Amino acid sequence: MENNIFELQYALDTFYFLVCGALVMWMAAGFAMLEAGLVRSKNTTEILTKNVALFAIACTMYLVCGYQIMYGGGYFLSGITEVDSAAVLADFAAREDGFQGGSIYSGASDFFFQVVFVATAMSIVSGAVAERMKLWAFLAFAVVMTAVIYPMEGAWTWGGASVFGMYSLADDFGFKDFAGSGIVHMAGAAAALAGVILLGARKGKYGPNGEIRAIPGANLPLATLGTFILWMGWFGFNGGSVLKLGDIGNAHAVAVVFMNTNAAAAGGLIGALVLAYVLFRKADLTMALNGALAGLVAITASPDTPTPFIATVIGLIGGVIVVLSILTLDKMKIDDPVGAISVHGVVGLYGLLVVPATADGTTFGGQLMGAATIFVWVFAASFITWMLLKVIMGLRVTEEEEYEGVDLSECGMEAYPEFTNK
Amino acid sequence: MENNIFELQYALDTFYFLVCGALVMWMAAGFAMLEAGLVRSKNTTEILTKNVALFAIACTMYLVCGYQIMYGGGYFLSGITEVDSAAVLADFAAREDGFQGGSIYSGASDFFFQVVFVATAMSIVSGAVAERMKLWAFLAFAVVMTAVIYPMEGAWTWGGASVFGMYSLADDFGFKDFAGSGIVHMAGAAAALAGVILLGARKGKYGPNGEIRAIPGANLPLATLGTFILWMGWFGFNGGSVLKLGDIGNAHAVAVVFMNTNAAAAGGLIGALVLAYVLFRKADLTMALNGALAGLVAITASPDTPTPFIATVIGLIGGVIVVLSILTLDKMKIDDPVGAISVHGVVGLYGLLVVPATADGTTFGGQLMGAATIFVWVFAASFITWMLLKVIMGLRVTEEEEYEGVDLSECGMEAYPEFTNK
Amino acid sequence: MENNIFELQYALDTFYFLVCGALVMWMAAGFAMLEAGLVRSKNTTEILTKNVALFAIACTMYLVCGYQIMYGGGYFLSGITEVDSAAVLADFAAREDGFQGGSIYSGASDFFFQVVFVATAMSIVSGAVAERMKLWAFLAFAVVMTAVIYPMEGAWTWGGASVFGMYSLADDFGFKDFAGSGIVHMAGAAAALAGVILLGARKGKYGPNGEIRAIPGANLPLATLGTFILWMGWFGFNGGSVLKLGDIGNAHAVAVVFMNTNAAAAGGLIGALVLAYVLFRKADLTMALNGALAGLVAITASPDTPTPFIATVIGLIGGVIVVLSILTLDKMKIDDPVGAISVHGVVGLYGLLVVPATADGTTFGGQLMGAATIFVWVFAASFITWMLLKVIMGLRVTEEEEYEGVDLSECGMEAYPEFTNK
Repeated sequence: MENNIFELQYALDTFYFLVCGALVMWMAAGFAMLEAGLVRSKNTTEILTKNVALFAIACTMYLVCGYQIMYGGGYFLSGITEVDSAAVLADFAAREDGFQGGSIYSGASDFFFQVVFVATAMSIVSGAVAERMKLWAFLAFAVVMTAVIYPMEGAWTWGGASVFGMYSLADDFGFKDFAGSGIVHMAGAAAALAGVILLGARKGKYGPNGEIRAIPGANLPLATLGTFILWMGWFGFNGGSVLKLGDIGNAHAVAVVFMNTNAAAAGGLIGALVLAYVLFRKADLTMALNGALAGLVAITASPDTPTPFIATVIGLIGGVIVVLSILTLDKMKIDDPVGAISVHGVVGLYGLLVVPATADGTTFGGQLMGAATIFVWVFAASFITWMLLKVIMGLRVTEEEEYEGVDLSECGMEAYPEFTNK
Repeated sequence: MENNIFELQYALDTFYFLVCGALVMWMAAGFAMLEAGLVRSKNTTEILTKNVALFAIACTMYLVCGYQIMYGGGYFLSGITEVDSAAVLADFAAREDGFQGGSIYSGASDFFFQVVFVATAMSIVSGAVAERMKLWAFLAFAVVMTAVIYPMEGAWTWGGASVFGMYSLADDFGFKDFAGSGIVHMAGAAAALAGVILLGARKGKYGPNGEIRAIPGANLPLATLGTFILWMGWFGFNGGSVLKLGDIGNAHAVAVVFMNTNAAAAGGLIGALVLAYVLFRKADLTMALNGALAGLVAITASPDTPTPFIATVIGLIGGVIVVLSILTLDKMKIDDPVGAISVHGVVGLYGLLVVPATADGTTFGGQLMGAATIFVWVFAASFITWMLLKVIMGLRVTEEEEYEGVDLSECGMEAYPEFTNK
Repeated sequence: MENNIFELQYALDTFYFLVCGALVMWMAAGFAMLEAGLVRSKNTTEILTKNVALFAIACTMYLVCGYQIMYGGGYFLSGITEVDSAAVLADFAAREDGFQGGSIYSGASDFFFQVVFVATAMSIVSGAVAERMKLWAFLAFAVVMTAVIYPMEGAWTWGGASVFGMYSLADDFGFKDFAGSGIVHMAGAAAALAGVILLGARKGKYGPNGEIRAIPGANLPLATLGTFILWMGWFGFNGGSVLKLGDIGNAHAVAVVFMNTNAAAAGGLIGALVLAYVLFRKADLTMALNGALAGLVAITASPDTPTPFIATVIGLIGGVIVVLSILTLDKMKIDDPVGAISVHGVVGLYGLLVVPATADGTTFGGQLMGAATIFVWVFAASFITWMLLKVIMGLRVTEEEEYEGVDLSECGMEAYPEFTNK
């Protein structure tokens, strides 16, 4: 009968991973809608195509080699369709910490949960390079990013057991990045930044006399929907990262993570909305949306430690930072149509650095070390990859294609063929 | 080993709250899309901004004081990040009804579930006052509504343990409102009605000779999406309100609630679609959508007692009522652009009053008493609040701003800058 | 105490059905958005109305008689609101296979899960007959399809216990259709094909000299959103079809199904994207979306047996097939505005036939027999039904109504009244 209790725990923990994984998969829709809403209509089909294709590529490349690099093992050629119940029960029986020990769950549910994380990291890139990058160059980068670049830094942080995990930021520096403020979000932003630098700004974004021209997104309801989807999916992203549900202590931790994730998003939205109002005297919807996302990114490094009010404050500061960062990057002529580098990169870094304020055993230095490792590796590896792609196939569409919109040149179809009046 | 069973029950019930809470949070996206689809394009950015901002405000204010008022305790300054497993197990051990007793789960999961309910109540208001109210006046009202007005009536109904729960409608009058036909939906509608009365109708809605002019919504796919989101989220709203999953009796109750919630929505849609066809000889999509929502509101007061066929009928009558109510309110020149007062208020009242038809121990008189208490309190407190806001900052945008659309005056950006041909 | 373990298993399995059922319900939104995105703006309100109304009809008719035909029993007039815990525990006690035996869960959760499947089958039809069919003829067909046609073939395949289950494809031919590549998807496509044949192509789709004219969809972000929704919902569709979660073996099977479902969708997207690029030199978004759906349909007949890489390959071939099928059907002048017959019918057949490659105990002959039975029954019964409807009320709108768009004639309102420039 004790075995039946373990079977139920296995089933519950497996289901928990699957539900959380499905929510993270759903974030792919969120990025797609957010980015499609924030670009111009003439570039919408292409950004949608990038988003769906990168998700498919991420799932496939992580299966082929990414998971192996990050965690070892992997399921590319070996089967995973059978489970030996007796062996699983023996694992339960053998552990010293008993029922409250580390979770034991289906390897397939773990793979499912991990694979959708990779796609998240890659989704961050597509928005930053929108409206001017060649579609196939982007997809080629997605292959490298999801097969190698992300899995390598993942091995150093979350994947101690991998052969590439010869170096453990957690063990060596006390680095904590609970669900990936740095490992997923800042990593995606670092890859994006390398691409944006090599790609240059969109035509017309920065005027000859240094003026910055706003290029409004074509469909704000879509952008809002995308933000809500991401907000919802983030419950799976952070909540699933507890990695176990099936005892009192862990169940409570999962609940705290859900609560704090929500609180931080709310704080971030308020922070950005108010600051933008102070600056522009308008209730700036796109800043508010980016503020909510900033709150989510900020809390992701340690959603299990603050009280909900502190989580709100952490998010609120994230919302303030994202507004300032977006304005600053624009002054630096780093053209990021959706603000992804600010939301995921700058605020991801902030999220890492604020961890010691609430999490025992972490230090500012350790967090900085982890952030530096992730950033340097991802930025450098991405820069080299983008460079190679630039040489091989070129990164940027022609000036005429950019003017006409990449939808026609890359995809051969308009997103809204009956609507646009331009 | 018995302890392990309780640990699993705790974990399962906590997860159940979190999944249901995430679905209720998702309803915020549903309201945003529904309302954005039913207003004109020139007022879309502003309604989106209201919806995301009210959600953030609701989450924050309920944390700061709303939860305390409604249930006592609360997590504003006190920590909630640690759980004492031994104490929880002692709670389990101490209860007389054993395993099948009331659920024990993480307080954080309860807070998460409750906090998203507040936002639902507030979301109802934004649609009714759309296209003419000042954004910051609305957000100021959201602060009062989510910090005080909703929590007070919540204390009298669901929150017996609170210091404000000196009066219990359930205990004193046998009042039943399972998931909030009255406590959430009619309350939101009462607040909206007070605002609409003080605000007046949109310019041009009612002609000088008493004619009523249809002002079509700009984006019906969005409105449809919003309805589907609400339909889905309602499974969490009603299903989570069983408050326990982890034994046979409660698990079955949760399943019945899911089944009946779906049945009532289907019935409501059919009722409204058919009646609208009889009246207008057209298959009126917006009436059908409001019919589905009416079915959902109607079943919410007692989704656990009818058979699925009776639930379908309860929903169907709700669908009929909502069509008649929308037509009637328009004749009374109460201008509600999305029909929120009819869907949530009139049908919410109907939902409360139909409870005794299927729920033992409830009476028509008790339900009426509960409905009156909620309505009078929320309407009066809201009216006073709106009045104060009118005096302090004004409720209504200028005539010119209304004509140009509040997107430009309030938010400084259009929702669809490339699409509109007006 | 053993009883408590069974209670938890009952609760967990019930919750698993409810979560999966909610995801399948969500697919209704996916079909609505996909179809609304792929038709022209003048026919958008009507396709939305069809989608919401068919869902309501499906839920109601399946309650009234469909479930009884398919599985026996049913809940139309008999109550389901009470559960006898002692009787359920006696069922647990009586079974020989004990804890790991077949799942025992709330009948209401089973009904909820089954009822949303019917709607899926019917949703497939609406896309194929879009832009020219009378709304009420379609809804009348929905009544027959969900009350009788689908439940009958369901009784022969999944519903052995029904009085109509006198014939069991599984028992007699070893037919395997895990979650419904044939029973749901090909069945929907067969009904659609019968309708399309009787209905004829849209005006202007095929020119006088045999040329095929592309009629682009009005809103590709919506179509993309719909695909993501379907992708997410499919986790419930396939994952729930394991029918039990609560022991190690079944929990692992559910996890494998989630993983493979995702892998196949990714493979299908890549297959269609690459083939379309080879054929047209463009990254064709709509083909990519249909490729993802094809991957999902293809894996549905046996998502529990392949390794994830084989699942990717099965999906990829599905993605290739769907592109070729769409092109072929267009040459045959079978006008299917959204490609539903190719995605669900042709690929559904492929999904059935590829099962023996990975599933022990199945044969090509048995699968063919099952496919033929489903197709012949659904196509013939649908053809007769459509014929009767053609005689009674006519299937097709007038030429003028088709030219003006069915939104005005059928629904009396435009989907995007402010946007269209045509």
